[in-house]
Amino acid sequence: MVYLAEFIGTTILILLGGGVVAGVSLAKSKAKEAGWIVVTFGWGMGVAMAAYVVGAISGAHINPAVTIGMASIGDFEWALVPGYIAAQMAGAFTGAVIVYLAYFAHWSQTDDPDAKLGVFSTAPGVRRPFANLATEVIATALLVLGLLGIGANEGAVSAEGGVELSQLFSNGIAPLLAGLLVFAIGLSLGGPTGYAINPARDLGPRIAHALLPIPGKGSSDWGYSWVPVVGPIIGGVIGAWIWKLTGFGG
Amino acid sequence: MVYLAEFIGTTILILLGGGVVAGVSLAKSKAKEAGWIVVTFGWGMGVAMAAYVVGAISGAHINPAVTIGMASIGDFEWALVPGYIAAQMAGAFTGAVIVYLAYFAHWSQTDDPDAKLGVFSTAPGVRRPFANLATEVIATALLVLGLLGIGANEGAVSAEGGVELSQLFSNGIAPLLAGLLVFAIGLSLGGPTGYAINPARDLGPRIAHALLPIPGKGSSDWGYSWVPVVGPIIGGVIGAWIWKLTGFGG
Amino acid sequence: MVYLAEFIGTTILILLGGGVVAGVSLAKSKAKEAGWIVVTFGWGMGVAMAAYVVGAISGAHINPAVTIGMASIGDFEWALVPGYIAAQMAGAFTGAVIVYLAYFAHWSQTDDPDAKLGVFSTAPGVRRPFANLATEVIATALLVLGLLGIGANEGAVSAEGGVELSQLFSNGIAPLLAGLLVFAIGLSLGGPTGYAINPARDLGPRIAHALLPIPGKGSSDWGYSWVPVVGPIIGGVIGAWIWKLTGFGG
Amino acid sequence: MVYLAEFIGTTILILLGGGVVAGVSLAKSKAKEAGWIVVTFGWGMGVAMAAYVVGAISGAHINPAVTIGMASIGDFEWALVPGYIAAQMAGAFTGAVIVYLAYFAHWSQTDDPDAKLGVFSTAPGVRRPFANLATEVIATALLVLGLLGIGANEGAVSAEGGVELSQLFSNGIAPLLAGLLVFAIGLSLGGPTGYAINPARDLGPRIAHALLPIPGKGSSDWGYSWVPVVGPIIGGVIGAWIWKLTGFGG
Repeated sequence: MVYLAEFIGTTILILLGGGVVAGVSLAKSKAKEAGWIVVTFGWGMGVAMAAYVVGAISGAHINPAVTIGMASIGDFEWALVPGYIAAQMAGAFTGAVIVYLAYFAHWSQTDDPDAKLGVFSTAPGVRRPFANLATEVIATALLVLGLLGIGANEGAVSAEGGVELSQLFSNGIAPLLAGLLVFAIGLSLGGPTGYAINPARDLGPRIAHALLPIPGKGSSDWGYSWVPVVGPIIGGVIGAWIWKLTGFGG
Repeated sequence: MVYLAEFIGTTILILLGGGVVAGVSLAKSKAKEAGWIVVTFGWGMGVAMAAYVVGAISGAHINPAVTIGMASIGDFEWALVPGYIAAQMAGAFTGAVIVYLAYFAHWSQTDDPDAKLGVFSTAPGVRRPFANLATEVIATALLVLGLLGIGANEGAVSAEGGVELSQLFSNGIAPLLAGLLVFAIGLSLGGPTGYAINPARDLGPRIAHALLPIPGKGSSDWGYSWVPVVGPIIGGVIGAWIWKLTGFGG
Repeated sequence: MVYLAEFIGTTILILLGGGVVAGVSLAKSKAKEAGWIVVTFGWGMGVAMAAYVVGAISGAHINPAVTIGMASIGDFEWALVPGYIAAQMAGAFTGAVIVYLAYFAHWSQTDDPDAKLGVFSTAPGVRRPFANLATEVIATALLVLGLLGIGANEGAVSAEGGVELSQLFSNGIAPLLAGLLVFAIGLSLGGPTGYAINPARDLGPRIAHALLPIPGKGSSDWGYSWVPVVGPIIGGVIGAWIWKLTGFGG
Repeated sequence: MVYLAEFIGTTILILLGGGVVAGVSLAKSKAKEAGWIVVTFGWGMGVAMAAYVVGAISGAHINPAVTIGMASIGDFEWALVPGYIAAQMAGAFTGAVIVYLAYFAHWSQTDDPDAKLGVFSTAPGVRRPFANLATEVIATALLVLGLLGIGANEGAVSAEGGVELSQLFSNGIAPLLAGLLVFAIGLSLGGPTGYAINPARDLGPRIAHALLPIPGKGSSDWGYSWVPVVGPIIGGVIGAWIWKLTGFGG
């Protein structure tokens, strides 16, 4: 059940997140050129809605960097990590396929292959891999630190004293707060790399881009693909440890 | 009383939703060209405010796709469905008439007949009916799935174990969350078809467009009108069944 | 104490509401041309913050149309109405003076006298007084209906069964909801007249515009000034009575 | 522990706040020219997220003007003031350094030295120091008045009757409300000076700007630097005393 929840949660995340990028960038979309506020709210609400639907079941990690970061400080069982990550990857792939279908009539109308890839995966504004990696590390560290802070603030603490996301997201407002955290990170730290902050969010849809029969698509840019996988994992662990070392969780 | 509530709720939805489209598209409006963030917040807040005013009475379905979807999994009585739908259609028509009055001075100032129709009903960015239908199915499935998820998360569950929207919307924050769900769907999945996701929202105002003495109006585009009716109904049922089959509702 | 609260609440409303219009329209402001989403959020948050500061004391009517509307259905004492309105007018005037000071360096930089008046008072997009009046009636009816709906939803009901705003705004989320209601009305119904929906909000600052030594100011447009006073009062009473007649308040 | 909390809270504030300015103003950022709504939401969410992470520990003042204002009315111990301010300054400096790293690849791509300074510190739209000072005083007075209002509304009151921010921010929604207060102030009163409203927010990053090896940076504009320090302190005290003198806190 928790794996199904992670699968569906990540599907919803990518359906709304990939969808908003499609909306602002594909030709003849009514949201064309609607701007960064639309993109960042789209991803933020994607997180929130995923957490409302599945958060009380699985904790709505919907992100391997969250799963690994939580596990690294003992707030999540390592035994569940492989299943969570597999479900997240499958969900992200599936979400990207549904975005492809929802915008089915728009691919052939759009000329720019970079715009098409952008619906699926991130690309940096300035291509300097280590700088890009640093950005992803910083942004993901803040994501996990913020999630743990929200969790402690809302009293979602397990018997062992760790933050428990499935308990957190049973709370009426917490999924919205998690969404606003991602909204905030996108607004402020999304500029350089498009804020993957989630290996599944980037890699799953990149595989979908490679496989789907998208008219006039270009390269899937595999050369960059390690950055939004490695950066978020490092950042997630750092963020979790900052939380643990401060002792703010009590 | 529940029918009156659905009538007034749908009136409020269309007054705010149709109103925001009028605001961004009619000549000499102060909100002219204000962009997709304004449109999507306008519809989202329309849902929220309708649910604050009538949600505790009737559950604020304000959408036949929600009514039918809920009934299809046994969370709503079939006997009430015809009355709900009739009230929703009448409310949507009435809301459109009030929008017409609120923007009374602006119709004759506006040249584009498509802009005028757009205040009332949706039209696709690329006219490919089955692709458009798929978009409406996907977006509405997410709407109903999200509503049920929010309902379960907030503990609005009846004695039989189903989600009860009138109980949900007695909760202080839930109407806002329902509004943010529609905001999210609009941001991310509204690009191709303008996200009807509600047969009453599209058909009621389309009838109003056909009947009202709007200066310089064009066709009411009846050829497209089946898509935003059929798509949302299919999607609503699919979304409800995804919820039921996952068992996330317990 | 309640009059002081209404005074300060209305001062805050106009400081934030007038301020946002100054921000988007005066020359050399960093928010210049920031668009309708900024204007509508500015006014909405103005209502919310006023209600956080004074709502638990006086109910944060900060609007004669709310005061009169509530009194017309027996949810507010007529004996307090004159004092409330006087405090609201004085607060609106004071708020406008503080906006003048906060943007002190920008008046002489701005050429357009209409932009300067717009910081203080509303003007219609198309000048047709009875159509403009209808817009203000509709928008204010929705304001009062929405406030009563939020109040009933949050359980802010007095012993006699009426909605009590001072009880409502003691609730943590309710002031924000009232702000979002005004945000919604602005998004959707603000296009034709700039949504005064509040006689004090329009008349108090208009008097300030007439009296303050604003460089290069033009007419205070007294010919239009009755519309945003009369329209909201009519609308407020209609909205309150729709609520009462539906019986949704129980 | 409280000093560490203020340090980390202010780091988060500047990471998100400075980050959003970098995002909208540095070349090749994906958020380039995204507008005032993005800037103001970025700072507002920066406050909210800082308060979620550290608010329950230290009260998340993250601003010497709040610390001094609270102390001036007896709601905070003077003995803690120097340590709080030192931690806030150090955090603001650190946050600015992390923003520098997160946008590392973008500094050399950007020509305008004013844009680079703007990521760190505020500058006025029209340079008239006493008018600019007045704007900062007004905006910060509203900040502290609003925080105290939110605190009283949420019942975060100590045994002595004063508002206690650490108690306030243990409440699930209050950090978000504090963020929306700053969002509101930015929308409406940020136009003239860019709303420092916080001496640490301006001075800490200005020092970072002076010290960091930013390619093509210009002056750190020390001539203006006293305004965003002195103005907020005066305003914070005024806001706190307005609250105390009204007696709204009970």
